[in-house]
Amino acid sequence: MNEFEFIKNIKKKYGLDLVGDDCAVLPKDNENDLLLTADMIVEEIDFKLDWTTPQLLGQRSLAVSLSDIAAMGGDVTWGMLSIGVPEHLWEPRFLDAFYEGWHDLAAMYEVDLVGGDVSRTTNRFVIDSIVGGIVPKGKAILRSGARCGDGVFVSGPLGGAAAGLKLLKEGMRYDPKSSDPQSLMILKQLRPLPQLRLGKQLQEDGLATSMIDLSDGLSSDIAHICRASGTGARIFAEEMPFDADLLEVAGSVDEMLELTLHGGEDFELLFTGNSEKISAAGLSDVFRIGEITDNPGVIEVVRGGTTELLPAKGYRHF
Amino acid sequence: MNEFEFIKNIKKKYGLDLVGDDCAVLPKDNENDLLLTADMIVEEIDFKLDWTTPQLLGQRSLAVSLSDIAAMGGDVTWGMLSIGVPEHLWEPRFLDAFYEGWHDLAAMYEVDLVGGDVSRTTNRFVIDSIVGGIVPKGKAILRSGARCGDGVFVSGPLGGAAAGLKLLKEGMRYDPKSSDPQSLMILKQLRPLPQLRLGKQLQEDGLATSMIDLSDGLSSDIAHICRASGTGARIFAEEMPFDADLLEVAGSVDEMLELTLHGGEDFELLFTGNSEKISAAGLSDVFRIGEITDNPGVIEVVRGGTTELLPAKGYRHF
Repeated sequence: MNEFEFIKNIKKKYGLDLVGDDCAVLPKDNENDLLLTADMIVEEIDFKLDWTTPQLLGQRSLAVSLSDIAAMGGDVTWGMLSIGVPEHLWEPRFLDAFYEGWHDLAAMYEVDLVGGDVSRTTNRFVIDSIVGGIVPKGKAILRSGARCGDGVFVSGPLGGAAAGLKLLKEGMRYDPKSSDPQSLMILKQLRPLPQLRLGKQLQEDGLATSMIDLSDGLSSDIAHICRASGTGARIFAEEMPFDADLLEVAGSVDEMLELTLHGGEDFELLFTGNSEKISAAGLSDVFRIGEITDNPGVIEVVRGGTTELLPAKGYRHF
Repeated sequence: MNEFEFIKNIKKKYGLDLVGDDCAVLPKDNENDLLLTADMIVEEIDFKLDWTTPQLLGQRSLAVSLSDIAAMGGDVTWGMLSIGVPEHLWEPRFLDAFYEGWHDLAAMYEVDLVGGDVSRTTNRFVIDSIVGGIVPKGKAILRSGARCGDGVFVSGPLGGAAAGLKLLKEGMRYDPKSSDPQSLMILKQLRPLPQLRLGKQLQEDGLATSMIDLSDGLSSDIAHICRASGTGARIFAEEMPFDADLLEVAGSVDEMLELTLHGGEDFELLFTGNSEKISAAGLSDVFRIGEITDNPGVIEVVRGGTTELLPAKGYRHF
């Protein structure tokens, strides 16, 4: 059992997967439901301190949770931040920059920090990011609403974050002064941008039948939608929107496809819906990459006229 | 700067202490406010695995957060649980027992587990317990409402949890088959019981002007109330309710006082209010231990007719 399976199993077994969605949906008042999400982010598992800056880490901690709210079509309202800090990081410069990053992104989306906790840890920095949002009652976009014939869409070019991760692993580091393709892709890995505006628009206009954010990777995330919806899906490799700079990092189209199909953490939205309506809505940066089929659990990829099964190879951690 | 100061400072500096109370209070609907609390609990900092059982640890993770809801006079509704699990604990027996403990206590208070996250850690078990509750609009009992002349009350005998911690440090271990005083005090440390019923009653009957739960220790927690309320307090040492078995562990009355005044984690409620009204309410297990004064920030302890300053020596971690 690998880590991915382990985590999936315990979430399912112990009820953390109650709704099986990016957020829990609870009744709030007569008009709205409450959306809740928590993301635990651990040093040396989800990030390395020498790969990022404290400020980017603060931003990323909030961004991954905002992305969960976006994936339900919701609006974000408050955040809590629990951190465990090892003694060697008890220095104002580090924590100032970390919270500054969090608050910078929070200000963009009008998120208030309302609480959280602080503990000591023995040696690693640990973050639990908790975000609450709202969505009109009964209108949260779930993973379970995809129907045969729906188109499959993504909200932007893919593969950049995975390519950035590859560069970090190879020893490259983020250079704030550089705007070369490598640095931009590293920044995509270190500072994902949540698609809150688009998620909300899709919800308000009733355009998405199901939605998820691309955290694990397309191949895994489309499988989540198909499992929840009782459908299959067919992805057209030729329609995949590659990150503009991806060819600079990937040596071949095969590798570009590998990064876009299986590399996660782009935090774009993956959604399904009526293809004509979505095309007619004039949404910018939305790409149709496939269609929902009535073949439950079967995810296919079509490339150069041949069809193969697409294994769920996405992952969350490096 | 010690750890206690460090944590206090960063909570204040970065806005985690926004409301400065046990829970954040947010508007929910026309009738109720939403209460939110998060507690991060770290192996080797807040607990040791060989001191407890996975089941007791699961219970305790929820109990400390329920106690925060109790301290606001609220009702609990949902919980989230984020855990970071090192690879050597990826075994169903451990996690089954941990979640069983959580769910046992949750069932007692009708708390639903609605979400959370699971991550890997490098070597230590980390828990972030998040709990949401409700309280009638504007009725949350804050730390800031104490007034000169109010009595100071606690909801039960103190010192048991601190004595249990002392025994654990000395090498004793929890024995579920034993009912001797030592085992009972260790159990008080390992399985605190949140005072939700009493907290809610105090709120409904309008009896408490301020409230906090005893997590840091009486000397620190009364200081929190005085700081928030702009008052002082006078504690009567002779009125302190000692845990029934405390003398078995403490060698002297001095040591018993040390444990009850400064040892934390009893998770009883500390509250203030009109002494006559509270006495007349016939609450069981409620002890009047002092009074609020108009001497801002000055906490005194009266013993044998002499009055001394009471330093805030409480702590949270071992």
